[in-house]
Amino acid sequence: MDALLSDIPRQSPPYLYDLAGEYPNRGGKGLRAALCLAVCRAFGGETSMALHIAVAVELFHNAFLIHDDIQDGSELRRNSPTLSARYGVGVALNVGNVTNLLGLQRMMATRHALGGEVAWQLFEETELMFRHSLEGQALEVGWIRDNVCELTADDYYRMCLKKTSWYTFLYPCRAGLLATCGKPSDAVELDQFGWYLGAAFQIRDDVLNLIADERYGKERAGDLWEGKRTLMLIHLLGRCSPAERSRIRRFLSRTRTERTADGEGEVHWLLERMTAYECVDSAQSAAEQLAEAAEREIARVLETAPAAESDDGPVHEEDRVFLRELPRFIVSRGH
Amino acid sequence: MDALLSDIPRQSPPYLYDLAGEYPNRGGKGLRAALCLAVCRAFGGETSMALHIAVAVELFHNAFLIHDDIQDGSELRRNSPTLSARYGVGVALNVGNVTNLLGLQRMMATRHALGGEVAWQLFEETELMFRHSLEGQALEVGWIRDNVCELTADDYYRMCLKKTSWYTFLYPCRAGLLATCGKPSDAVELDQFGWYLGAAFQIRDDVLNLIADERYGKERAGDLWEGKRTLMLIHLLGRCSPAERSRIRRFLSRTRTERTADGEGEVHWLLERMTAYECVDSAQSAAEQLAEAAEREIARVLETAPAAESDDGPVHEEDRVFLRELPRFIVSRGH
Repeated sequence: MDALLSDIPRQSPPYLYDLAGEYPNRGGKGLRAALCLAVCRAFGGETSMALHIAVAVELFHNAFLIHDDIQDGSELRRNSPTLSARYGVGVALNVGNVTNLLGLQRMMATRHALGGEVAWQLFEETELMFRHSLEGQALEVGWIRDNVCELTADDYYRMCLKKTSWYTFLYPCRAGLLATCGKPSDAVELDQFGWYLGAAFQIRDDVLNLIADERYGKERAGDLWEGKRTLMLIHLLGRCSPAERSRIRRFLSRTRTERTADGEGEVHWLLERMTAYECVDSAQSAAEQLAEAAEREIARVLETAPAAESDDGPVHEEDRVFLRELPRFIVSRGH
Repeated sequence: MDALLSDIPRQSPPYLYDLAGEYPNRGGKGLRAALCLAVCRAFGGETSMALHIAVAVELFHNAFLIHDDIQDGSELRRNSPTLSARYGVGVALNVGNVTNLLGLQRMMATRHALGGEVAWQLFEETELMFRHSLEGQALEVGWIRDNVCELTADDYYRMCLKKTSWYTFLYPCRAGLLATCGKPSDAVELDQFGWYLGAAFQIRDDVLNLIADERYGKERAGDLWEGKRTLMLIHLLGRCSPAERSRIRRFLSRTRTERTADGEGEVHWLLERMTAYECVDSAQSAAEQLAEAAEREIARVLETAPAAESDDGPVHEEDRVFLRELPRFIVSRGH
């Protein structure tokens, strides 16, 4: 995090670089950067090889959060007003774009450390990550916009792979492997691990949105107000009575403004129905099964991975422990 | 334009690639792509060398327009509803981001055509262009947000260099020169030309916003509603009486929503005062002087530029004529 904040330009103009550090300063988990560094070291690399990449990954994540808050019209992020709520959409959109740019600058800096061939492949990985993320977001936005109610769990998982798994797990893992390897390679060893983790992570995120306390740092049940197609909502639509189904459809067909004007009655009813049909429990249980699959997968990969040749053996063992414990952390975290 | 549209993916999901072609399909001028290609050929290159770059430049421009319309809350672009007005901010922001991504993909494709070294320098130029553009936009947004009223023409020109000149002129010129040259070079020969053109272009754009007819394709006097710091407004603030100055300051201190609620009275009064103090005429005259400086500059550069070695002599002469006539076109265009 220090490496990230130290690199943001301090000069004028205001309302740009000065705000690019705002979300990182609010104490996020730094999960994606930590994953990238842990993968690099667990496979025998040194921190310095992946540091630029880890910072870039975290910057792309923060840019994504800023844009996402604009798109969702969100009010809170990490217990403070979102950039768009505090400074308006004009400023926030710029800050999101410049945060992406700072990430690209960091990626470009890998050219000196890792050579032109690896730097170029990191660009291709970055391009692929953005493509999947944007397609995943478009899928989700399209479902809300067209009031799609006939979704299956498989549709949800496909969306997760693009929207969440790719940029939060597959991309940091692949980039960390590339940094360790130091030459072009396919770096796909952890794709399956990343896929399971992404789905588990997104489900836990959606569960937390419904059961959240103040640590969560966003509006409670914001997903319901937005009409987000979560696994819980898909379960509910599949389990409820025809009359309830019509009522849900009617609620979802409104705009967010109309829903807000209606007051909290419908949202409370939805929450209560989700509990009655055990949708939250079954979503959490799906997340835990995915986490177990991820645990088995990382154990398998690490077993066959070459033993690290680094002198500082303990460091790499610590990182392998981090990777093994990550799935459990992801599905039990409180924010 | 065909090269641009042919490359947009056609597959699902909806609300992404399907909308990335929407602004280009509305018949923009394609000015930046035309400039890039003309520079490449005028200095002895072939169209094929700069085609990927020209498409990328135009894609970045369209992404910028989409984001700009979100930031300004604009309703009209090229005589149709803006993407944000038609599909909402969530969809529009994604489409803007994916349009930037399509541009980056095109830039990456230059690696095969022009080699890794030139491709890398094109990335550095692209990074620099984004940096200047975002800093220029932040300057402008900051002036509005902090209700800065003590601006000079020099402040305006500095902002123009970053916000307009760089991405509309310096960047397409540099990229076109790099394509022709085919090896890393500083490619700064047309920087001065681009700077003059950018300032002239922005002033003409601001003038058109006030005197616009339907060809302009945006809301009339939208800049006044937004409180944009144009050269005309800076002239007006410098020329008006103290009482008028207070009234203008008061108008500018309001939010756009408050201005809209006030009705059109104040905007009409501002327009009338700008005419009375000849602010539009003097801005147009400043644009024309800049265009003349650009004409002298391009004549000087082309005189000392090496004669083209291309077989198809007429093509390159046509492109030199285009460059010579561009300044005049820019300050007399009607949209």
